[in-house]
Amino acid sequence: MSRPLIEVDPTRSVEEQREVLMNRWHPDIPAVVSVKPGDTFVVECLDWTGGQVRNDDSATDIRDIDLTPNHVLTGPIHIDGAQPGDLLIVDILDVGPHPKQNWGYTGIFAKQNGGGFLTDHFPEAHKAIWDFHGVYATSRHVPGVRIPAIPHPGIIGTAPSAALLNKWNARERKLISQDPNRVPPLALPPEPRNAIFGKLLPGTPEYERIAREGARTIPPRENGGNRDIKNLTRGARAFLPVHVPGAKLTVGDLHYTQGDGEITFCGAVEMAGWIELHVDIIKDGMNKHNIQHAMFIPSPIEPRFARYLVFEGYSVDEAGEQYYLDAHVAYRRACLEAVHYLMQFGYTGEEAYTILGAAPVEGHISAIVDIPNACCTLWVPTEIFEFDILPKKDGPHPMVQGGKIAHA
Amino acid sequence: MSRPLIEVDPTRSVEEQREVLMNRWHPDIPAVVSVKPGDTFVVECLDWTGGQVRNDDSATDIRDIDLTPNHVLTGPIHIDGAQPGDLLIVDILDVGPHPKQNWGYTGIFAKQNGGGFLTDHFPEAHKAIWDFHGVYATSRHVPGVRIPAIPHPGIIGTAPSAALLNKWNARERKLISQDPNRVPPLALPPEPRNAIFGKLLPGTPEYERIAREGARTIPPRENGGNRDIKNLTRGARAFLPVHVPGAKLTVGDLHYTQGDGEITFCGAVEMAGWIELHVDIIKDGMNKHNIQHAMFIPSPIEPRFARYLVFEGYSVDEAGEQYYLDAHVAYRRACLEAVHYLMQFGYTGEEAYTILGAAPVEGHISAIVDIPNACCTLWVPTEIFEFDILPKKDGPHPMVQGGKIAHA
Amino acid sequence: MSRPLIEVDPTRSVEEQREVLMNRWHPDIPAVVSVKPGDTFVVECLDWTGGQVRNDDSATDIRDIDLTPNHVLTGPIHIDGAQPGDLLIVDILDVGPHPKQNWGYTGIFAKQNGGGFLTDHFPEAHKAIWDFHGVYATSRHVPGVRIPAIPHPGIIGTAPSAALLNKWNARERKLISQDPNRVPPLALPPEPRNAIFGKLLPGTPEYERIAREGARTIPPRENGGNRDIKNLTRGARAFLPVHVPGAKLTVGDLHYTQGDGEITFCGAVEMAGWIELHVDIIKDGMNKHNIQHAMFIPSPIEPRFARYLVFEGYSVDEAGEQYYLDAHVAYRRACLEAVHYLMQFGYTGEEAYTILGAAPVEGHISAIVDIPNACCTLWVPTEIFEFDILPKKDGPHPMVQGGKIAHA
Amino acid sequence: MSRPLIEVDPTRSVEEQREVLMNRWHPDIPAVVSVKPGDTFVVECLDWTGGQVRNDDSATDIRDIDLTPNHVLTGPIHIDGAQPGDLLIVDILDVGPHPKQNWGYTGIFAKQNGGGFLTDHFPEAHKAIWDFHGVYATSRHVPGVRIPAIPHPGIIGTAPSAALLNKWNARERKLISQDPNRVPPLALPPEPRNAIFGKLLPGTPEYERIAREGARTIPPRENGGNRDIKNLTRGARAFLPVHVPGAKLTVGDLHYTQGDGEITFCGAVEMAGWIELHVDIIKDGMNKHNIQHAMFIPSPIEPRFARYLVFEGYSVDEAGEQYYLDAHVAYRRACLEAVHYLMQFGYTGEEAYTILGAAPVEGHISAIVDIPNACCTLWVPTEIFEFDILPKKDGPHPMVQGGKIAHA
Repeated sequence: MSRPLIEVDPTRSVEEQREVLMNRWHPDIPAVVSVKPGDTFVVECLDWTGGQVRNDDSATDIRDIDLTPNHVLTGPIHIDGAQPGDLLIVDILDVGPHPKQNWGYTGIFAKQNGGGFLTDHFPEAHKAIWDFHGVYATSRHVPGVRIPAIPHPGIIGTAPSAALLNKWNARERKLISQDPNRVPPLALPPEPRNAIFGKLLPGTPEYERIAREGARTIPPRENGGNRDIKNLTRGARAFLPVHVPGAKLTVGDLHYTQGDGEITFCGAVEMAGWIELHVDIIKDGMNKHNIQHAMFIPSPIEPRFARYLVFEGYSVDEAGEQYYLDAHVAYRRACLEAVHYLMQFGYTGEEAYTILGAAPVEGHISAIVDIPNACCTLWVPTEIFEFDILPKKDGPHPMVQGGKIAHA
Repeated sequence: MSRPLIEVDPTRSVEEQREVLMNRWHPDIPAVVSVKPGDTFVVECLDWTGGQVRNDDSATDIRDIDLTPNHVLTGPIHIDGAQPGDLLIVDILDVGPHPKQNWGYTGIFAKQNGGGFLTDHFPEAHKAIWDFHGVYATSRHVPGVRIPAIPHPGIIGTAPSAALLNKWNARERKLISQDPNRVPPLALPPEPRNAIFGKLLPGTPEYERIAREGARTIPPRENGGNRDIKNLTRGARAFLPVHVPGAKLTVGDLHYTQGDGEITFCGAVEMAGWIELHVDIIKDGMNKHNIQHAMFIPSPIEPRFARYLVFEGYSVDEAGEQYYLDAHVAYRRACLEAVHYLMQFGYTGEEAYTILGAAPVEGHISAIVDIPNACCTLWVPTEIFEFDILPKKDGPHPMVQGGKIAHA
Repeated sequence: MSRPLIEVDPTRSVEEQREVLMNRWHPDIPAVVSVKPGDTFVVECLDWTGGQVRNDDSATDIRDIDLTPNHVLTGPIHIDGAQPGDLLIVDILDVGPHPKQNWGYTGIFAKQNGGGFLTDHFPEAHKAIWDFHGVYATSRHVPGVRIPAIPHPGIIGTAPSAALLNKWNARERKLISQDPNRVPPLALPPEPRNAIFGKLLPGTPEYERIAREGARTIPPRENGGNRDIKNLTRGARAFLPVHVPGAKLTVGDLHYTQGDGEITFCGAVEMAGWIELHVDIIKDGMNKHNIQHAMFIPSPIEPRFARYLVFEGYSVDEAGEQYYLDAHVAYRRACLEAVHYLMQFGYTGEEAYTILGAAPVEGHISAIVDIPNACCTLWVPTEIFEFDILPKKDGPHPMVQGGKIAHA
Repeated sequence: MSRPLIEVDPTRSVEEQREVLMNRWHPDIPAVVSVKPGDTFVVECLDWTGGQVRNDDSATDIRDIDLTPNHVLTGPIHIDGAQPGDLLIVDILDVGPHPKQNWGYTGIFAKQNGGGFLTDHFPEAHKAIWDFHGVYATSRHVPGVRIPAIPHPGIIGTAPSAALLNKWNARERKLISQDPNRVPPLALPPEPRNAIFGKLLPGTPEYERIAREGARTIPPRENGGNRDIKNLTRGARAFLPVHVPGAKLTVGDLHYTQGDGEITFCGAVEMAGWIELHVDIIKDGMNKHNIQHAMFIPSPIEPRFARYLVFEGYSVDEAGEQYYLDAHVAYRRACLEAVHYLMQFGYTGEEAYTILGAAPVEGHISAIVDIPNACCTLWVPTEIFEFDILPKKDGPHPMVQGGKIAHA
């Protein structure tokens, strides 16, 4: 692996290294470096919070995370010759933990701070620390599991054009206006506090303008961005729409592993780390291939499992209310089924929820036209558990002490 | 394979063989046969419409399908000793086309008749006939694809208890009442017309009562039912909740293959056929394993692909409206991206839509907490195409004649 | 599935249906039927012995198998337009057990009758009957395993030219002459007794000539033939060299499943059955693609396993004798390691040996240049066992009664 | 990743760092470090030649490799508490190229210097340099391929007991005596020249004794050793027999990737690098599990391919000579078929041979009892090629320029 093109240090503050970092989407954030089509390079990234989470046994840091500086990303990187309408080919060649930090974390966000997918069931903050042992992670906070790595960037995206940015801000503001005081909020508008745009410093008119306009990095959008697709792992090839000259590629929010949906919000195994990329361009690729969104070819080197236990959910909520083909509700019910199932082995609800966020579970939309019920399925690979979780005719598995997994 | 326990004949009318058929969910539909835990047996099934679709080149039959008799299912089958609260273990041992009918069909439903997932884009009826060549299907109506079989029952379920049935009817009526005249409708209430309950014949008070109360078979629910999960293929093990004594297992709506979501509504490759089952019981399994829904272990014999092209959708609709973590909208956008992409090769929109319904594509919920955008991904296995569909730096693939696939 | 082009009946004798059967390789065996490139058709086959093995609990039938009529094959089939030098494309579309016989068998051949791979360790005849339950087989003679189907023809081949046949006979006679009285023999020369060539009947000069010259069907050769490659399963595409006009395709020796090597000799799960084929031609394909042997593209529908326990063998024999890069010895040692390992659970040696012959184990040549030891590995999928066979720090697995599997 | 327990530097000479290196198997080589069961640690390794191969375009270095110092390995490592008869559990947690050397090489060994699997066909030395791009390798010497990583140690083993070592030396000397002057030799006896045993230095009686007795590291044996099993990649769990107190674990000969058989002898993509290990002990494991050889559980993170082109070989040699169930000959013929097939695209024979050595091809023993022919199959994953290599009805693939791949 060559020397990083951009280096960061997780033991130092965001402020000290802000000139290679950014945390909003805007066409006018200046590029940190330039590369050419055909180049291979390594970029280092802080964890998405820029170091707000500690390797300890308390969840107060998760509870108190300040979301205004998030996500702390590395870039943008100017790709020579990229023009609006092109497709950027980004080969994700490798991803790993930062040499200075061989651990990661999964957080259940408190409902007061945005919550997660099951926030009505688990409204309090919770944290699990994961130790990395090569391609496996284990956690002193989640007994009985060993999770194989599927390292990937939660965020990889290009800069929006001014027009596209305006469209984003307009449609999201309209949504927010439906219920502006909701907890958690429906969406997050531009937020000048703690905005970072590399060498552009607060106090300058350009900084202040971008800070007022720049879109938050939480949602995925037509620039790619925070898609949290675990399958963008080493070996995958991503295709990203180009909206501004030079594309302005940005990357960060690295995950050691993650389940489909990243359901605890901070649900992946979050880490500081590095990513090796190769870039190329398909000229006029969006038009030539008739597409508006990012797309990708997955890697031949994903962890593969043969045996899953698959949970089902339909679009009827926990209170018995019927929804119309609502895959969100259906997936939540499938997740709740899995949480309850895992609790039979002695897991707490928070532990089970954490496993579903962090392990490479799969979430499938199995049926979406059988009115009024969508059917979503949650695929839990049985091999991540150190004991047999399959249903048994003869009760709890004898390998689990007293029918229950031992807690530390 | 042993002689079928229940036989049907796709060349005969539903009426002629109604005594082994049923098309509503109700606890009081009399069982057709009884089997014991540990038994293996074969059941034959008509296609879901009971023969309303012809092997020809016109879609008028799809357009005019009468949904009141659907789904035409086989059963119920009484399982000796099964009691409410048990989990029924159903091994799906094999599934195949009916010896008298070696073809199937995929229909795009007209919006007037219920529509499909992309009904606003494709409001007219459309049909493709598929010919079965062992484990592959091809269609004279969809050039350039050869689809490997993943045969499965669209519907496999148990009877609801009276209380559960009441709950279903109440919650679905409440939904319908939100917009009773919607086209397509939000849900389907009980429908006495064309109801079938085996030997129980119209005119009897018992028949009339069940016809008034019986739930339609379109949606999946807490009894399993029409989950349209392609992975319930031969080799899979399903676990089904038992709500009535004897479980009253029913099966039908057989598919030769299907994509996740079955997006054209009649989107699988629908067929008449047979299914071989083995049944067993986990006593008090729902309580023991803390679950309320069906679940399953997938088969080691599914078709496996190594290379996919994966399309992404976010929860912003085609008009630019922003939705809150709406996986339904996100998956629709991913499907539309794929339709548009495939059209570059000369496919019509209807053909591309048909491929996504019928081929074993996968639909994943990749991100569901990144407010306000859900991110869903549609995984299209590239190997089902007879030409290379991957994006190319140098334009359309040379193997496609003049850049376009040849239509018959 | 269409009506078989060639039908056989396992409940009738070979003699009664010999006109569609053959059991030697020779260019002049008359074709039974003709098909065209592009045709799809079904052919039925007797089991390889033509019904010499019974569904009972005695191995006397295996011990006494008369090898002179074997393999009892179906064909040949003339492919219109095929010429020497072409490559025949044979798509194996589906394979299944004969409708009249839903069981199969695995035999350990007695050393006196040819033996198997471990014949010095297991010199006596042994038999296991397998019952088919859709895509799974179980055996009352081998407790604790359930094997997924990978149905395939042990034999599929074309007729040799006269020149090629002469070459075969010459080289095999030369080998036999090295040790003509060896038990088991080094090879089998032409054998007129019990030869079958369809409508050509004994007593005619043509029959007698072919019977004197025809090569035995035991070994695979440049016409494909008895390759016993389990991966030629439904969904695979085989390419076969054409040596005579019309190719003269022959098929038989159907297996429900098999392990790499088919080590007990009659080691697959042998069955009578049917096979659906599609044929096409690559003109001058042997020259165009520079090949002399058959080749194939495997199926996307093979059973897949994620977890194996892998045994290793090196080319030192059981007596401690060192061999030079001998993969045969190395694979035998790997098989013996696996047999011994499985015996810790209470299996007899014969049972363990039978499992390795019948289950879809894989045999890999892992290292073949590290003088003087070849290293071969035997991959046993752990999921075929109903209990956990992985090594444990804490002794035999608690799910096995008293540390041992229960025998019937 | 923690700081390496043992560090080496590929830019320095073997002599400078010999105190952590070893290159013979012997019970009395002193341990470099001690670890405890449960420990995780990283070990660095030189490439197997200790730096004899340069990153240039000439094969003279391959031709002139001095084999006496090979393999240059790291260790031994003492495992506290390990006793003869135990099984050592070694989890291979991760493997990567050395930070100072982001490239590797594949060599075809000259026949005069030991040769490779096809040495009679390719008797001259040849070299290909591979550049690592994260999880993919490409070579300026082999156009048109991109190979995914399956990094692994060619060698991982424990020390033999004195008795076992004597057995090895006796059986190998006996083999050599059959043809002592053969080129290449049948086996390699102990060789005092260039022997390395860590801190034990030449001139001391202990060194001289071990140098006279120590077994060469080329072959795999009952201690594991040079098994060259590509599947011992990151994520795999190896079980190794313990023959001396402390086990004395040694590792090296790291490969970025390799094909089954490593057929060019120096056929893997050889590299200097690091390996992360976790060790544990099954007390009395050899007896408890009835095994004498190493075994392993493969990793869930191997590269997986769906499409292969599979070549077949039977045990008839290139001159037409018939061999008895000789898997070595059969695999060689399968490899030659593949070499010839690939040459149609414009590859030289040496390039094709290099691809089969370096890419993760699979070698299967498909049939081993069909006298007199073994059938071995070589599985070439089609996805490693940048163009379509599958047979075509209509001639060479249009994506290959003029029917031939372009050479630099």
